Amino acid sequence: MKKNLVVIGYGGMGGWHTQKALDSDVVNLKGIYDIKKERRELARSRGIFAYETYEDVLNDPEVDLVTVAIPNDQHPAVVIRALEAGKNAICEKPVAITSAELQTMIDAANRSGKLFTVHQNRRWDVDFLAMKHLLTTGEIGELIRVESRIHGSRGIPSDWRGKKAYGGGMLYDWGVHLIDQILQLTDEKIAYVYCTLENITNDEVDDGFRLEIVFESGKSALVEVGTLNFIAMPRFYLKCRQGTALIPDWRENTKIVKCKYWHESDVLPVETAAGLTKTMAPRDDVTTDTYEFERPKSDVHDFYRNVCRAIDGKETQLVTHAQVMRVLRLIEAAFKSAELGQRVRFE
Amino acid sequence: MKKNLVVIGYGGMGGWHTQKALDSDVVNLKGIYDIKKERRELARSRGIFAYETYEDVLNDPEVDLVTVAIPNDQHPAVVIRALEAGKNAICEKPVAITSAELQTMIDAANRSGKLFTVHQNRRWDVDFLAMKHLLTTGEIGELIRVESRIHGSRGIPSDWRGKKAYGGGMLYDWGVHLIDQILQLTDEKIAYVYCTLENITNDEVDDGFRLEIVFESGKSALVEVGTLNFIAMPRFYLKCRQGTALIPDWRENTKIVKCKYWHESDVLPVETAAGLTKTMAPRDDVTTDTYEFERPKSDVHDFYRNVCRAIDGKETQLVTHAQVMRVLRLIEAAFKSAELGQRVRFE
Repeated sequence: MKKNLVVIGYGGMGGWHTQKALDSDVVNLKGIYDIKKERRELARSRGIFAYETYEDVLNDPEVDLVTVAIPNDQHPAVVIRALEAGKNAICEKPVAITSAELQTMIDAANRSGKLFTVHQNRRWDVDFLAMKHLLTTGEIGELIRVESRIHGSRGIPSDWRGKKAYGGGMLYDWGVHLIDQILQLTDEKIAYVYCTLENITNDEVDDGFRLEIVFESGKSALVEVGTLNFIAMPRFYLKCRQGTALIPDWRENTKIVKCKYWHESDVLPVETAAGLTKTMAPRDDVTTDTYEFERPKSDVHDFYRNVCRAIDGKETQLVTHAQVMRVLRLIEAAFKSAELGQRVRFE
Repeated sequence: MKKNLVVIGYGGMGGWHTQKALDSDVVNLKGIYDIKKERRELARSRGIFAYETYEDVLNDPEVDLVTVAIPNDQHPAVVIRALEAGKNAICEKPVAITSAELQTMIDAANRSGKLFTVHQNRRWDVDFLAMKHLLTTGEIGELIRVESRIHGSRGIPSDWRGKKAYGGGMLYDWGVHLIDQILQLTDEKIAYVYCTLENITNDEVDDGFRLEIVFESGKSALVEVGTLNFIAMPRFYLKCRQGTALIPDWRENTKIVKCKYWHESDVLPVETAAGLTKTMAPRDDVTTDTYEFERPKSDVHDFYRNVCRAIDGKETQLVTHAQVMRVLRLIEAAFKSAELGQRVRFE
């Protein structure tokens, strides 16, 4: 039987959740609640039931599940109230601004015995799934370094996302997605993080960042977000022992060059620009294979499918408390690194 | 009148210098000297005069200028001998392994009154010149960040370039070029450097590195070299206040996207991969101009032209002692940063 869902907050992402719920094979959109009257009326004008108060949502015994899509700073209180009222709760990301707040949410979930998870929807991004496939199959060898970038050119949106008190800034916004993806690519412990923040169009919160993650074995990852980049650098760059993979943009296939023979001894120097180079002489198809890997299939509905099966005890929830805590602690370490101007130990 | 040049060391770069000298309008190739008999014989077989000893070069009163293209660790002694014998000297890069050694070379030049400079030929690279043009004209606004990358996939050459004692490794090899270029793009003082080294195919020396340079105003530069990158990331990425420029490869034009109107307020969120985004919604040609900047003209012979005019006191030498010292001190700071795992202050 479908779970009855109420979406809390009918803004951009709240609207997205209601749309997905209307198409869902596992949840039934019971309604929405928004603190703003005009948003409730907008929902009603679209034929969606709108609760008048949050209390009403929590008192409705037919409601199984709430999805909380409101400004970040208000997540903990609203989620904890839902759990304490015996509702299962999905929270939008970033789940909280501090790991201490998140701990109170996890504690509430443990006390209530209800499901509590975070909408890390970008685990279903086709670009990320292509990277995951290459690393799982070992097709181009062991991971050396992965670089994950998102570049836009509009600065930070002029809403609460630009305010510190609301948990604004790119490290909380896109960072939480991209870091979560990276941590799904390897299960190694992290040794260090080093982060620099950008404040180009916004002084109050970071409007971009570069975060270096160094794993215990020396493998590394870069997560970079920029909002004043009129040309985007490639979305993913994956450097492995036997080859390299690159995704220019999430709409495109993965480009792969794989080494067939190392074959280094008889390299002739080549003239590049104003000088000779032997080291950078390009390879040819005698020693490498060049091909594309098609975009994997992905269905975002799998997130709600997992949540509903987890509520019924038939599956483990995919986005676990421990994973969510690790990402948030990593963000805290990144802010600390940026403040100190030094790399900081992690785990 | 043309200056009489002898090239010391008839290997890869020595061969390049002799070739350029044969085409030169300012120098006359007087001959070569190489410590190895077979290299001297090879030169002779090509109709190039080969001195039997270095002594013979220095005792030849007709020799105005030597170009020293031998393993890095031997540069100081050979250059100083030339200067003390009253010859002008061009040294291949990296000029020396330590700044202390370089100081002894500068002291020898000052004592002798002879010209001493370094073959920083990549100041004539067309890709670098395109970046320099954009920053000088301010065409896309003030510099925020520049990224300079060279990626190859052959590891380190299996000669002295892989040995620490000879000054091998990529920071000394390509780093010295790319850092010199960056320092030509802005005259700001540097606040910090942060460097990580790679040792993937070679344990003895770095076979790649990532060097972050942070200037006093917060502007920044990345210099990155990789030798196990089967797909190369773009050669240059230039992030400025009013636009972005990218050069995929030195053979290609510069791609530019310039902002015409900031115009941020009425952005509609777009669906990307498994989620919505407003921040990363792409721009269109209402608010941006997209165009290409053609590769600038460049003539590597201008290096020797400047050297010869500087010997005659008609021009200042383009590659100065102070610039060469700054690059080498920066490389020392980069090694220190990599060793400490922390950013280090500079200047």
